[in-house]
Amino acid sequence: MSEKKKIYKPSPISGFPEWTPDVRLVEQQWLDHIRRVFESYGYCNIETPAIEALDVIAAKGEDVDKEIYVLERLQADENDKKEARLALHFDQTVPLARYVAQHFNDLIFPFKRYQMQKVWRGERPQAGRFREFYQCDIDVINVDHLPLHFDAEMPAIIWQILSTLSGMKNEKIQLRISNRKILMGAMQALEIKNPVEVMRWIDKAEKLSEKQIFDGLLSANVEKNSIRPLLTFCEKKETGPQAGLNIYNHINSYSFCNDLMREGAEELMFVMDQLALLPANAAVADLSIVRGLDYYTGTVYETVFLDDPSYGSICSGGRYDDLAGNYINKHLPGVGISIGFSRLFDRIRQKGQLPLGKHSPADILVVMPNEDMRGVATETANILRQRYNVELSHGGKLKKQLATAEKKGIPYIWFPPFEDGLPHEVKNLATGEQTKADPNTWEASLRGTS
Amino acid sequence: MSEKKKIYKPSPISGFPEWTPDVRLVEQQWLDHIRRVFESYGYCNIETPAIEALDVIAAKGEDVDKEIYVLERLQADENDKKEARLALHFDQTVPLARYVAQHFNDLIFPFKRYQMQKVWRGERPQAGRFREFYQCDIDVINVDHLPLHFDAEMPAIIWQILSTLSGMKNEKIQLRISNRKILMGAMQALEIKNPVEVMRWIDKAEKLSEKQIFDGLLSANVEKNSIRPLLTFCEKKETGPQAGLNIYNHINSYSFCNDLMREGAEELMFVMDQLALLPANAAVADLSIVRGLDYYTGTVYETVFLDDPSYGSICSGGRYDDLAGNYINKHLPGVGISIGFSRLFDRIRQKGQLPLGKHSPADILVVMPNEDMRGVATETANILRQRYNVELSHGGKLKKQLATAEKKGIPYIWFPPFEDGLPHEVKNLATGEQTKADPNTWEASLRGTS
Repeated sequence: MSEKKKIYKPSPISGFPEWTPDVRLVEQQWLDHIRRVFESYGYCNIETPAIEALDVIAAKGEDVDKEIYVLERLQADENDKKEARLALHFDQTVPLARYVAQHFNDLIFPFKRYQMQKVWRGERPQAGRFREFYQCDIDVINVDHLPLHFDAEMPAIIWQILSTLSGMKNEKIQLRISNRKILMGAMQALEIKNPVEVMRWIDKAEKLSEKQIFDGLLSANVEKNSIRPLLTFCEKKETGPQAGLNIYNHINSYSFCNDLMREGAEELMFVMDQLALLPANAAVADLSIVRGLDYYTGTVYETVFLDDPSYGSICSGGRYDDLAGNYINKHLPGVGISIGFSRLFDRIRQKGQLPLGKHSPADILVVMPNEDMRGVATETANILRQRYNVELSHGGKLKKQLATAEKKGIPYIWFPPFEDGLPHEVKNLATGEQTKADPNTWEASLRGTS
Repeated sequence: MSEKKKIYKPSPISGFPEWTPDVRLVEQQWLDHIRRVFESYGYCNIETPAIEALDVIAAKGEDVDKEIYVLERLQADENDKKEARLALHFDQTVPLARYVAQHFNDLIFPFKRYQMQKVWRGERPQAGRFREFYQCDIDVINVDHLPLHFDAEMPAIIWQILSTLSGMKNEKIQLRISNRKILMGAMQALEIKNPVEVMRWIDKAEKLSEKQIFDGLLSANVEKNSIRPLLTFCEKKETGPQAGLNIYNHINSYSFCNDLMREGAEELMFVMDQLALLPANAAVADLSIVRGLDYYTGTVYETVFLDDPSYGSICSGGRYDDLAGNYINKHLPGVGISIGFSRLFDRIRQKGQLPLGKHSPADILVVMPNEDMRGVATETANILRQRYNVELSHGGKLKKQLATAEKKGIPYIWFPPFEDGLPHEVKNLATGEQTKADPNTWEASLRGTS
């Protein structure tokens, strides 16, 4: 009996998700699946420390500064002040830029890498906002020139992942693609002076009313006469096998179409043509897509739930002209896309769509018939373990051993002989069937989800 | 041409290891391998946030306090002060205890879990010391009583892992096992008053001279007459199929053998008997093993390189009587073991034993013959991708495409037809052989390491 003692009852910290083993098992399957698809396209993995010098992290811009977690040793001393200040990374793009600059001579270009790590953002705690979450990023970077082919490979990879993740079967996902050169060119043609601010308003179009956008663009000093043509221009969407040609023709038909617009339209056409074999509505050329971040210069991507676009993009990215200009005197254009893993996973979890039920990776529970047969049971488990995940029961009442298998969702129960000379038997819990079996040759008809 | 600009040259931060893609690829294989073995024994995975409330983290003891990293938001405001202080976890045992208490009603006991995450310790930078590193932990916890069987399962799992990791083939590893009850009993019998301090000295025996240990024990107020018998007692080691019985008989033969010593000897015998099938010298019953941490109460493990025991233990653990007494009013005994992954991996890397050479997970590079055949090349890559990891070349000079495959260590090059009507061909870079092939049916004779 334990004495009465002082107990510190732990409670979850808002914004730091943590799953029970059954949910974690599906999270692992998701991560494995994403990794498998990334690797099937020949992308290599890198992992950077969770921690960077604050100088590296904070170089990106003020917007994220307030979300940065800096570190201090609990018992800091004089020596600590001499060292660089350290901070947790808040994305994987800043570490990638630093990594490529630092290891430049050891990398093979085009450098095709994926990265699946946690990132941290010290946001105010609120529902649906994580302060620790997984991102799954894929990027390709080259020296001086990066072929456009990769701009089409990114959405193909993402589509393959999102359309095959467990629990996503009934979700209607749409990749929305544009090219920033088109809108930049249009703004040049319409003599709009502050394109960055204008792009921010257009980026918000789906979340605001038409009047709010109109007023916003007015406040951004866009001439009243230009607002309507600009908004009409951005409204254009094209999907299906002819999307590339249609969007190109549409843009080209404008009287104010200039070279930059045409260049963007050609690139967008190339990307859409490469995606022509995807199902209807999987990818759409959508001229309202701009993405918030400044550094995109060409293709841009967003991904939404078609039945709930207001949930926001679950997977975004684009082409940038210069990855690591702050760190190295090389011109490194790239294109990449990032899956907001934790937000996506948690949404599907909350909708009750995850295939839960297994609390263990085991395919088979080997029963411990009695203490005399411990040697045989251990040996049986070792044989089966060469082909399957096997939990060896520690013993106790048989009924309790069987109950464990059921509770954990282990699909097979193996009965070693209860005494010498008897045969092994195995029970399939799904069918209830129990048969004689040889541990060396038996084959499961149904594999666990491990 | 890029202009001259100010460049911030990034440099590695001491203690935060980061690998180039070829090394990371092997690190992933190691992590996959360890996970596979853990799961083959039916252990489920959990992952806890990198961050815990400082109250939870700092409860363990003063020794680690100075290594704890606390977090602060870069632009902290008044609200931050109202929240709990946060810190990075420095091990996986404290988070496990908190996790089990917090999710107690959702877990199935005995709770068999493994955990492979990074942990952080703000040590002073020095060679061979990491401040961010992976630990791979496996533990089993039960309510009230945990069968001894698990004390034997832990070293069996660890042996299977360590003896099969790539690059470890020529390493002679030894698991050293004892049971704290034996030494605790002996100290009772010898009327030694401060057993914790004495255990600390015995734990250091391999690193200090005999005289230093002797003086240390004197300073710990051990009576001069008891020091020699105590040290002689601890010197006993037994290995081989009879190790269990031999160590039991050895302990039992002492005139001062008491019930606690006998209980420990019986438990140690049981564990050694279960390991009798391991190769000679794989496991040794070694009465000098005590482990530094206070909370072990029975079986204890260490793992050393036999040719370099001074490198210290790469894999340690033991049985504890009460995992989460601080957090929950339940008696939760457990047993666990932890692989010091990063230290082990880095040692094998530094010895040049890792099977490096692949910079990509791709099994096949599909060549892009020319722009006219882009559709065929893409389609070919998609077909092969259903069975293999495939990099599709982005084009350019054929010679350069082939050089990429060689540099990346991709074992096969696939040539789609250079014009309609010609056959596909595939080249095995290891043998130099090039043959006609059908992408739908071709089988690689040699798989990549992906």
